[in-house]
Amino acid sequence: MTASRNLADLTTTDVERLCRPGSVALLPVGAVEQHGPHLPLGTDVVIADRLCDEVCARHGDDLDLWRLPTLPYGKSNEHLAFPGTFSLGATTVLAVLDELAAGLRRTPITTLALVNGHGGNTSLLDVACRDLRVEHGLSTFLLHALLPAEHGGPSHPEEGGLGLHAGRDETSLMLHLAPDLVVMARAARSVPEWLADCGQVGVDGPARLGWTADDLSADGTLGDPTLATAAHGAELFAGMVEALVGQLADVRRFSLPDPGGVR
Amino acid sequence: MTASRNLADLTTTDVERLCRPGSVALLPVGAVEQHGPHLPLGTDVVIADRLCDEVCARHGDDLDLWRLPTLPYGKSNEHLAFPGTFSLGATTVLAVLDELAAGLRRTPITTLALVNGHGGNTSLLDVACRDLRVEHGLSTFLLHALLPAEHGGPSHPEEGGLGLHAGRDETSLMLHLAPDLVVMARAARSVPEWLADCGQVGVDGPARLGWTADDLSADGTLGDPTLATAAHGAELFAGMVEALVGQLADVRRFSLPDPGGVR
Amino acid sequence: MTASRNLADLTTTDVERLCRPGSVALLPVGAVEQHGPHLPLGTDVVIADRLCDEVCARHGDDLDLWRLPTLPYGKSNEHLAFPGTFSLGATTVLAVLDELAAGLRRTPITTLALVNGHGGNTSLLDVACRDLRVEHGLSTFLLHALLPAEHGGPSHPEEGGLGLHAGRDETSLMLHLAPDLVVMARAARSVPEWLADCGQVGVDGPARLGWTADDLSADGTLGDPTLATAAHGAELFAGMVEALVGQLADVRRFSLPDPGGVR
Amino acid sequence: MTASRNLADLTTTDVERLCRPGSVALLPVGAVEQHGPHLPLGTDVVIADRLCDEVCARHGDDLDLWRLPTLPYGKSNEHLAFPGTFSLGATTVLAVLDELAAGLRRTPITTLALVNGHGGNTSLLDVACRDLRVEHGLSTFLLHALLPAEHGGPSHPEEGGLGLHAGRDETSLMLHLAPDLVVMARAARSVPEWLADCGQVGVDGPARLGWTADDLSADGTLGDPTLATAAHGAELFAGMVEALVGQLADVRRFSLPDPGGVR
Amino acid sequence: MTASRNLADLTTTDVERLCRPGSVALLPVGAVEQHGPHLPLGTDVVIADRLCDEVCARHGDDLDLWRLPTLPYGKSNEHLAFPGTFSLGATTVLAVLDELAAGLRRTPITTLALVNGHGGNTSLLDVACRDLRVEHGLSTFLLHALLPAEHGGPSHPEEGGLGLHAGRDETSLMLHLAPDLVVMARAARSVPEWLADCGQVGVDGPARLGWTADDLSADGTLGDPTLATAAHGAELFAGMVEALVGQLADVRRFSLPDPGGVR
Amino acid sequence: MTASRNLADLTTTDVERLCRPGSVALLPVGAVEQHGPHLPLGTDVVIADRLCDEVCARHGDDLDLWRLPTLPYGKSNEHLAFPGTFSLGATTVLAVLDELAAGLRRTPITTLALVNGHGGNTSLLDVACRDLRVEHGLSTFLLHALLPAEHGGPSHPEEGGLGLHAGRDETSLMLHLAPDLVVMARAARSVPEWLADCGQVGVDGPARLGWTADDLSADGTLGDPTLATAAHGAELFAGMVEALVGQLADVRRFSLPDPGGVR
Repeated sequence: MTASRNLADLTTTDVERLCRPGSVALLPVGAVEQHGPHLPLGTDVVIADRLCDEVCARHGDDLDLWRLPTLPYGKSNEHLAFPGTFSLGATTVLAVLDELAAGLRRTPITTLALVNGHGGNTSLLDVACRDLRVEHGLSTFLLHALLPAEHGGPSHPEEGGLGLHAGRDETSLMLHLAPDLVVMARAARSVPEWLADCGQVGVDGPARLGWTADDLSADGTLGDPTLATAAHGAELFAGMVEALVGQLADVRRFSLPDPGGVR
Repeated sequence: MTASRNLADLTTTDVERLCRPGSVALLPVGAVEQHGPHLPLGTDVVIADRLCDEVCARHGDDLDLWRLPTLPYGKSNEHLAFPGTFSLGATTVLAVLDELAAGLRRTPITTLALVNGHGGNTSLLDVACRDLRVEHGLSTFLLHALLPAEHGGPSHPEEGGLGLHAGRDETSLMLHLAPDLVVMARAARSVPEWLADCGQVGVDGPARLGWTADDLSADGTLGDPTLATAAHGAELFAGMVEALVGQLADVRRFSLPDPGGVR
Repeated sequence: MTASRNLADLTTTDVERLCRPGSVALLPVGAVEQHGPHLPLGTDVVIADRLCDEVCARHGDDLDLWRLPTLPYGKSNEHLAFPGTFSLGATTVLAVLDELAAGLRRTPITTLALVNGHGGNTSLLDVACRDLRVEHGLSTFLLHALLPAEHGGPSHPEEGGLGLHAGRDETSLMLHLAPDLVVMARAARSVPEWLADCGQVGVDGPARLGWTADDLSADGTLGDPTLATAAHGAELFAGMVEALVGQLADVRRFSLPDPGGVR
Repeated sequence: MTASRNLADLTTTDVERLCRPGSVALLPVGAVEQHGPHLPLGTDVVIADRLCDEVCARHGDDLDLWRLPTLPYGKSNEHLAFPGTFSLGATTVLAVLDELAAGLRRTPITTLALVNGHGGNTSLLDVACRDLRVEHGLSTFLLHALLPAEHGGPSHPEEGGLGLHAGRDETSLMLHLAPDLVVMARAARSVPEWLADCGQVGVDGPARLGWTADDLSADGTLGDPTLATAAHGAELFAGMVEALVGQLADVRRFSLPDPGGVR
Repeated sequence: MTASRNLADLTTTDVERLCRPGSVALLPVGAVEQHGPHLPLGTDVVIADRLCDEVCARHGDDLDLWRLPTLPYGKSNEHLAFPGTFSLGATTVLAVLDELAAGLRRTPITTLALVNGHGGNTSLLDVACRDLRVEHGLSTFLLHALLPAEHGGPSHPEEGGLGLHAGRDETSLMLHLAPDLVVMARAARSVPEWLADCGQVGVDGPARLGWTADDLSADGTLGDPTLATAAHGAELFAGMVEALVGQLADVRRFSLPDPGGVR
Repeated sequence: MTASRNLADLTTTDVERLCRPGSVALLPVGAVEQHGPHLPLGTDVVIADRLCDEVCARHGDDLDLWRLPTLPYGKSNEHLAFPGTFSLGATTVLAVLDELAAGLRRTPITTLALVNGHGGNTSLLDVACRDLRVEHGLSTFLLHALLPAEHGGPSHPEEGGLGLHAGRDETSLMLHLAPDLVVMARAARSVPEWLADCGQVGVDGPARLGWTADDLSADGTLGDPTLATAAHGAELFAGMVEALVGQLADVRRFSLPDPGGVR
């Protein structure tokens, strides 16, 4: 038998023996999409995967986490103008999540935490979170180890609040996690500074723009990857692991007054 | 001929004569759903409608606004446990918006601003905003005169950051806009204070809960409507109109480097 | 508390207190589409809205009517060739109605009357009527205050039975209800008289043509709006209100042997 | 080579050689559903098939008709309460017709006539007719050799206008066309006479009921099959053939000002 | 009463009287698609129909078979490049079968055998077979009187294992069953012999090609119809009838440990 | 820059620089489903992943292979009765593949090889293969390193041709690839020997059963895992790698007469 915290490493017998209503299922959701000329298409998968690996390795047992296989493809239509982007439609992603939730419902686990690695998935997963609670009676959570900048997360001031994609932080993370896949020689600052003059129109805020990467960038980068360092990436990653652990500890402690059933 | 800024008040001839690529189409999106025992089901429609009326009356001409008929029904499945809730599914709402965007594309207008009156619509409309830009080449914006509390908007401290639904602000607005429809005698504080002890789990933040109203409230209220006053509502409404006008002024000035076409 | 007969004006508490199995829910369905160079896009919404307003004001209490918010957009693909037409697809309209019926099923009301303001919706709403009965166990009715000419309704002889759209009657109604929105100077007779020579092929009858407005008209008009007068509109409208009241009185009295449940 | 007027009897080469833009494709649409205790489930298929056989045999060449294989299953959810009913959903039927129309568009033929054998299909096929014209640029027609009673067609006075299903006419037709499949010993009058007291509520007319067969009948019959005779069936069938030939002659002569293409 | 084994020839009463859980429902599935310049579009319908006719005539009673009306249209998108092909999409075919299975579930019969006449349907029907068992609790079977060559069935050596479509066997069958519809003068050998040099890539086998007919043939034929004879067709047909009878005898005898219900 | 053959390890710039029309994209498709009490849920993912790793490591460069991220979830509804099964519906899988193919079409690569690790996916992927060719103009292939027994692949004679799931071969492979995840103590022979008496009814062959695992097995196993050894697994795996390399070499050499475009 295994000490793995991957649900897919369990046998059917073990699913019934080891999983419990109080367990937390983690579903990492990534994306395969352009990340500028310097980062690999799979950047969001690498980050989501490694975060969940780390969290499960350290706290899988005490938080009773069961990690599902990562959904590698997400909703990435803001990046369709650049080759290498694979985007699933909103309806398709909702259908996939609905059907996976039905599968989870047939295990003893009643809590599902989506761990999102791609800002373009955020709103759609938020929609799914509620739908899965309503349709399947699961307790559901949407977790971000680091909130995307366009959803209220941090962005380095030198990037003018626009380190949205393949910028300093994401590049630093990849220099730490997968340096062989980063081509720093091609990294170039690409910040749509003119957005600062657009008042309340912006990628977040009250007048939220339905932007695509090619609306705002010539090479797909939104931020300044030249500021990235592996050291910053290591620090950032450590913080993200810690943040996610903290969130999961709270998720684990949490229980709805009535965990519900299918309505 | 009419001085109305309702697109539906125009004739076909006038659509071609008066609408321009620089015009801004407003699509108010509401909801018909439980608002506790004291507010009407149509609260979100009333607020979205009145806001757009006011904004168009004051600045329709100088901002070149064209208001579309309000979508009265939205995504309200967090409220299904209470009678009077009418909720459209995510896929249906996306289909409706896609088909309306196709209609707008056959007018000269190339900018669409969704004006949202219901927090449960926010994430879905954010998804739609991008999809409509990608599929129809429109410049799209998601506007909130007041950001919902669960999407980073304000909540009165006495409501502990949980004035999510039918609380002080919404009730005040209705006391100002439609006092005959408010039953203050039934208004009662209902704040899930225990959520404050749940750490990072909450209705916003990094560990975002897929909540439903009945998870958090016995009567559907989330907040403290007993704090509401018409005077506060009047002040709030004036601020919301001003906010929306400011956003629309920025939307009107905004232009993407390449306004695009269908990709 | 309110004396309104708008369901959306009720609180959740009132839905449970005031609505009954014997109540009748009215769902007005309109369209936003070209109505020639002289009538506004929203003509069908205006007419459906005003009819229901009038009927509810006079007989809401004695017939126990509860009016739902109007669906402003309908199926209008026969008018797509003219700008200003917004058309939802058949599948989308059926999904919207299915989901609204599910909402109604969670109130005490078990009778739904669709009040149609647009001839292009008629057949689709007829399909929906049966589907909603079968899927949701509601008693359902499709009401027309004035049957569309292509569904057996009247057309002024001077229009040769082809007063289908934006002709004498519709223009008269708008001259009565919303004269400011009518541009009589642009009204022009447009009757496809050649259809009379087509034998059994026609917009109704046994060999029913799948027509679009641009198949039959250069400016989108099908009929003779120059014959329209406000006086005729007033008379017509009064008759339509009376007709609808009569229908609703019969609907109210009607009960199926077994009102059913979901099958 | 064959003199058949069945399109499916042609080879690909012949499709290109013999079919023309002026040809008329016939698509018979039936239903497999309960027809009371005395008529077979496939009654509507038998009638539609035999009508089209007869019409093509007599006038296939001069009217240049090409008959497509019959769609045997239709929308029959009004009959689901009785075993033997097979009903396709509205969305499925629309998808089937859309895909068949795409197939027709790849032949030289540009005119499609749906020949309907089942009243429960009528409104849905009317929706399809327009959609196929708009989506595929075909000239489309909905033909009924005999209009269903609930769509304005005749019903014997002794059936009180309610010879809707498996009554005098349909039973007579089957006594003529397939007497071996009729069990007259089980035929029984079943007329919901109480509907006459329901005012404007009825199966047709302005307050149109969303009825199902079990709402109105204990055994699925709606009408009086005991009045049926083979002689009446023969006469009726002859009249229906004649009517359909007349309609098709008019369809054949008809041409839209602009036969269009995909829009 | 009738001795027919067509389910559509039964009345509702007879469905309940004659059909049993041990009965076997046959659903023939055909296709309307190009079959080269020498065979009719409806070849697959003819073969499926005649097979089922024959089987039911000989063994309908002892095997308790009930034949459903043939689905004439199937999935034929490999043939779209040639006029006369009518292809339904995978999703549409699955929806049709799902809805027909729901209909069968309302009869006493719990066993459904799909009898396939077109190789392009095979994989999709295999998917459906399982889905119908899971969704509707039916015992389901996919039967081929002759396995298609690309699914492991035989192909005459002179056709190099590539008698896939409109070749020796199919042409022989049609010379036997419907000689008037065969144009032997146009029959020509068309075998993509180069496929033999493609190693493991092929129409079957481990590296299975997603082929279309126009990838492999100039006129739509895949095989050598010039080898066809009516005598071979007669022999082949007799063998197919015998094979199908044998399969159905085994189906009839078969019973799952637990015939199930909807899951 | 990297020598990886994972497409997701490339940057956008490298996609354009390194991928070519002659390249072959590999999409491994797995499943997460019960594999009896002794094998992990993720067995099919492990096998598909490791095969593609091995093949790309050895021949990625000379065969110009680009591996896409594995789809971990497949169609597994035959296993729904056992906890731990996650199954996507047929329509959802087809949508996912369609959208991924659209993504591939935006790279220079025009050849897609689906590498299937789960027998329950086979027929559906065969459907997809053709659809992706027709809809996206890609050259598509469905590859199996080892054909599933129910699709003509081998099964050890001691398993009576019924080593379908979690039997000797699959268990051996896992003993070789991931011995820590195998619980041999729970492995038990489960062969539905009675199927041998069912004549032509079976999991393959002409009368193909729509089976589910619980129809045929009490613990989800179909075969005899007690026969498994790591040595057999190693040998089998080596053969599968070799087989897949051979297939891909042929795929790489293959080119359709006209590589096509979207039709």
